Amino acid sequence: MKTDTPTLFIDEEKCRRNIRQMAQKAANNRVSFRPHFKTHQSAVIGEWFREEGVGGITVSSVSMAAYFADHGWEDVTVAVPCNIREIEAINTLAGQIRLNLLVESPETARFLQTHLTHTVGLYVEIDTGQHRTGVAPEDTHTQREILQVIRSADRLSPRGFYSHPGHTYHANSPGQIVTFQRRAIKALVELRARYASEFPDLRICIGDTPGCSLNDNLRPADEVSPGNFVFYDAMQQHLGACSWDQIAVAAACPVIATYPERNEVVIYGGAIHLSKDSLALDEGITSYGAIVEIGDGHWGRPWNGAFVRAISQEHGVVRLPAEQARNLRVGDVLGILPVHSCLTANLFREYRTPAGEVISMM
Amino acid sequence: MKTDTPTLFIDEEKCRRNIRQMAQKAANNRVSFRPHFKTHQSAVIGEWFREEGVGGITVSSVSMAAYFADHGWEDVTVAVPCNIREIEAINTLAGQIRLNLLVESPETARFLQTHLTHTVGLYVEIDTGQHRTGVAPEDTHTQREILQVIRSADRLSPRGFYSHPGHTYHANSPGQIVTFQRRAIKALVELRARYASEFPDLRICIGDTPGCSLNDNLRPADEVSPGNFVFYDAMQQHLGACSWDQIAVAAACPVIATYPERNEVVIYGGAIHLSKDSLALDEGITSYGAIVEIGDGHWGRPWNGAFVRAISQEHGVVRLPAEQARNLRVGDVLGILPVHSCLTANLFREYRTPAGEVISMM
Repeated sequence: MKTDTPTLFIDEEKCRRNIRQMAQKAANNRVSFRPHFKTHQSAVIGEWFREEGVGGITVSSVSMAAYFADHGWEDVTVAVPCNIREIEAINTLAGQIRLNLLVESPETARFLQTHLTHTVGLYVEIDTGQHRTGVAPEDTHTQREILQVIRSADRLSPRGFYSHPGHTYHANSPGQIVTFQRRAIKALVELRARYASEFPDLRICIGDTPGCSLNDNLRPADEVSPGNFVFYDAMQQHLGACSWDQIAVAAACPVIATYPERNEVVIYGGAIHLSKDSLALDEGITSYGAIVEIGDGHWGRPWNGAFVRAISQEHGVVRLPAEQARNLRVGDVLGILPVHSCLTANLFREYRTPAGEVISMM
Repeated sequence: MKTDTPTLFIDEEKCRRNIRQMAQKAANNRVSFRPHFKTHQSAVIGEWFREEGVGGITVSSVSMAAYFADHGWEDVTVAVPCNIREIEAINTLAGQIRLNLLVESPETARFLQTHLTHTVGLYVEIDTGQHRTGVAPEDTHTQREILQVIRSADRLSPRGFYSHPGHTYHANSPGQIVTFQRRAIKALVELRARYASEFPDLRICIGDTPGCSLNDNLRPADEVSPGNFVFYDAMQQHLGACSWDQIAVAAACPVIATYPERNEVVIYGGAIHLSKDSLALDEGITSYGAIVEIGDGHWGRPWNGAFVRAISQEHGVVRLPAEQARNLRVGDVLGILPVHSCLTANLFREYRTPAGEVISMM
């Protein structure tokens, strides 16, 4: 196991199990599964999804869509409001695959109508409570205006309504996560019904890992597009959306300094490896990751009372129970279960298996 | 100006002025200037330092030392506690350049004594108040033990005492920043004096941008190694360590959605571009960046009352005064002055000049 420097290990078995469980849940609910690939950004891991029958995918940028198109994905949704400055790349891609975009203003829809050289599918993004992007559910004026632009345009094909109910990340309990997601689905179902006579084929697509993990009744939606569940992380565990055993990536970081007198060690592994995303634990404590033993690239459950309490560019300060703090030595390696696996994977740019194989990313 | 996607612009003039000012300050104080290159990570920008007479540099990893060694830097300090698992790379590098490492335990010093194949310079790292890494100033037992290992080893050359007083980032005022840095220098000066009879050539090196920017009396130190000042950022401005006019990088980000009714727009530019480092502004508001106009790759002062209030992986939510919120359109481009330029630069992996030239990084 090469861990001279910070290394992101992947547990393929856990990862494939996460994929299989979500694919089966979607199938049991008779909703399409269009997973978000922004978390893993890897053609190799994409194949694990294909083996579970996945055909359509979701991504977070035009360049990510182009990467997966190059790896044989022919039905891709870019799930951020369309960036009209990338019209050239959009046209290239729309000539190669079935491309779906999100719009949430008539201006963007009209721009596409004027500038597209190939047909794209359009979802109208709805803000179901996160207040990041999307048309308000009650703003039927804007919804109708966008739908009319789509209908009048020969290169715009209406797909339906899309929403990321990201406010589930701020819920107080697993029960509230389910409530938030169900309300979001209900808002989209009402819109689907409202426009059904004029647009009978509109679909509703919803995607957030906490909700899709905890809500057993996804059915009123037509399509789900969660992403983070492929790896999960300490944040999802904290929310109750996964167990520790489901977290499929861990950063192996060498110990570079020990401080038994303050119950701490310092690792080579900081903000440029783990990201600065953090988690407010009980008692006002902030965590930048949970701690596991990672002997040979495999890991078990995190140590109670151990967490990354502070990070700089390359250093992580790890708080430990007294016994572990006494026993660790410079040159030992600790595993860190990240707070936000999407950002950690994005920083590492590759995964390593315990067998030493490198899994590359875009 | 190509800004279809998030782009990190550099203002070469501001950047060179920042370098020149810090070089002159060091010269006026008769202290050596050994700047930290972790902020820019670029051989091209390194040359701008060389033009100001810089010979020795500081970096934050062995791989960064190797990159700059490949670009002609022959005197490099790796300013994190030595990671003994990288002994092979350290030996390779120590055979090529004058390499300096930090140790803060007798164990690491003994490991180096046993495993080094070439001579390296060693600084003993001292914890002057940040409580991240280093030996406590009062722990003369450990200091003496490390110095004795160094003296007995034929491949360890004593350099002196190093400290990063990073607690200046948590000071309440510019005056307190100066106080914290002066206390840190005083602690190192006392150690230099304590061991002077046995080790007459020990030097003291200190590096933090807030302190080096605000403290006019660096002299009792022998060497300074600030890094962030090359670009500065919104955090340094908030601390009083720089003015807005000194910030030398800005991320140009397209507007993808507008919400005049909530005085916000959403940009293509999120945590994978800006990092999740944030700044607590007055009134409990958190900022992920200040907002500037960036017409042709040049920018002016930030807009009052405008800041990035939230970020996801690829989205940034920008709070604006009502007038700007009304006037911005999808497809416009906003400039973001980052909260923490080191992390932002690390994510972009390259700089662009207004003329369109790309400046690469390691």
